[in-house]
Amino acid sequence: MPAIEPGLPGSLSLTEADRALIEAARETLLRHYRPFWHMVAAALRTRDGHVFTGLHLGATVGRLSICAEPVAVGRAILEGDGTIDTIVAVRHPKPEESVRAIAIVPPCGACRELIFDHDPEALMIIPARPGTDPAGATAVKVPVRSLLPAPYQR
Amino acid sequence: MPAIEPGLPGSLSLTEADRALIEAARETLLRHYRPFWHMVAAALRTRDGHVFTGLHLGATVGRLSICAEPVAVGRAILEGDGTIDTIVAVRHPKPEESVRAIAIVPPCGACRELIFDHDPEALMIIPARPGTDPAGATAVKVPVRSLLPAPYQR
Amino acid sequence: MPAIEPGLPGSLSLTEADRALIEAARETLLRHYRPFWHMVAAALRTRDGHVFTGLHLGATVGRLSICAEPVAVGRAILEGDGTIDTIVAVRHPKPEESVRAIAIVPPCGACRELIFDHDPEALMIIPARPGTDPAGATAVKVPVRSLLPAPYQR
Amino acid sequence: MPAIEPGLPGSLSLTEADRALIEAARETLLRHYRPFWHMVAAALRTRDGHVFTGLHLGATVGRLSICAEPVAVGRAILEGDGTIDTIVAVRHPKPEESVRAIAIVPPCGACRELIFDHDPEALMIIPARPGTDPAGATAVKVPVRSLLPAPYQR
Repeated sequence: MPAIEPGLPGSLSLTEADRALIEAARETLLRHYRPFWHMVAAALRTRDGHVFTGLHLGATVGRLSICAEPVAVGRAILEGDGTIDTIVAVRHPKPEESVRAIAIVPPCGACRELIFDHDPEALMIIPARPGTDPAGATAVKVPVRSLLPAPYQR
Repeated sequence: MPAIEPGLPGSLSLTEADRALIEAARETLLRHYRPFWHMVAAALRTRDGHVFTGLHLGATVGRLSICAEPVAVGRAILEGDGTIDTIVAVRHPKPEESVRAIAIVPPCGACRELIFDHDPEALMIIPARPGTDPAGATAVKVPVRSLLPAPYQR
Repeated sequence: MPAIEPGLPGSLSLTEADRALIEAARETLLRHYRPFWHMVAAALRTRDGHVFTGLHLGATVGRLSICAEPVAVGRAILEGDGTIDTIVAVRHPKPEESVRAIAIVPPCGACRELIFDHDPEALMIIPARPGTDPAGATAVKVPVRSLLPAPYQR
Repeated sequence: MPAIEPGLPGSLSLTEADRALIEAARETLLRHYRPFWHMVAAALRTRDGHVFTGLHLGATVGRLSICAEPVAVGRAILEGDGTIDTIVAVRHPKPEESVRAIAIVPPCGACRELIFDHDPEALMIIPARPGTDPAGATAVKVPVRSLLPAPYQR
């Protein structure tokens, strides 16, 4: 499978299963979206092919909010085989934003750490050009370790 | 139902359903416990009576770990009616600790905020005397708002 | 000194030094306020009487923001005696809010934990009636342990 | 100045000022180290050449701890010009670890976000080979944006 973004080592183009994963995240967000409280959803495929979704949990104090990815990871451990083959997150626009499409978003730095910790071989679907990919048509799949170069180690 | 801890307004004694909830958290922890990575489990009962469990997700950088409670809350929203009637967390002793029993633990300050945000009427099961309740025999149920007096508000 | 809020054990009325502490937080916020990025400031008085201020650090991903209180605590350790006699935080209204006064805010659940950990005898200045105290005229001082009943313990 | 780590775009070798910055972090850690509570220190140089140090603040609940870098960033804003030219963190070994040297550590994913947010041109000193650089002799300086490829954007 050809690399399509040379700047991120190990980039891969999407498979049908990856497109279905994006769709699972999107459906979850459409079902549960609540402004401020649930703005992002995630979907994770384990190595044995099961899909687990996650949802962002907002908080009055933003620092105490929870990303969608850890909820999906927790479910994969509790309900599945606990591996992370591929994971993706999608974000709903805020009420005041003009672009209305649900877009794939890269994971935050904290989620990169968490995913790398729980499956260092995990792949993440991110927009090929961050911030400009509502349809996911130009999304790309990259190893989480490419998104966290020189990770903290003890 | 009589209050059994006057210092925390609204304290209640446990019901059979609460005992079952503690047991669900304990079973989850026994099944998934891994030193450092999964030390705490949670169980949440929605108002319509379903139980959802959660698991602590450790991280190399401790600040980036995820508590068990938000995983349970996320599941209750994604898989259930999204309410939090009652929630409890239990903790496994570390390998080097001498007391070997799984114990009920009070929620951290961040989880108090998250639970209060997502269901301000939620009840939490905590040890009647913190740190000394392996069997849960003297646990008590308190409103989350009693655990977060004078909450931050915007 | 008489308790003025029976609901929170150990409440105290403010001293002149407490009024000066609020003013230090307010001045810090007026000097450094930037919408989204610096919305809250804190001021801490050590037991030997020095004042250290702190500033909220916003983040694109809100979960990764830093509260003002830990910056003040870090400075008190690095530059002072490291104790926390009394601490207060004040918040600037957002551009779209109609109430324009800088108000005292209670600490979030995470800061309650951090302050309790670093000085379990610390006192916190909070609004006597949360959310309604722009001038601080009816503020009250309470032990941090009253704001974190039944704390998590290992 | 020649790049010495081709894998991280924009890598630079250290200057005398960078060596002094590492030394400032190391001295801060030696002065304030307390097992569990203060394990990491940071030092930051603003563009106008001032140095501000920071200290890790431990917490009973690890998720609520504060990294050393944000304390340094907060001080640079409150006490200096608020820019981040270069920043470094060093870590003390735990009591039970056999390697006893204070080592340069890469920033965690949350700190990468915070530093990138507050100065997108910031440089970070990291070990040339993570985990193996007690003396800092083979450290390297990289743009924070090289440590956070494809950052989350709203």
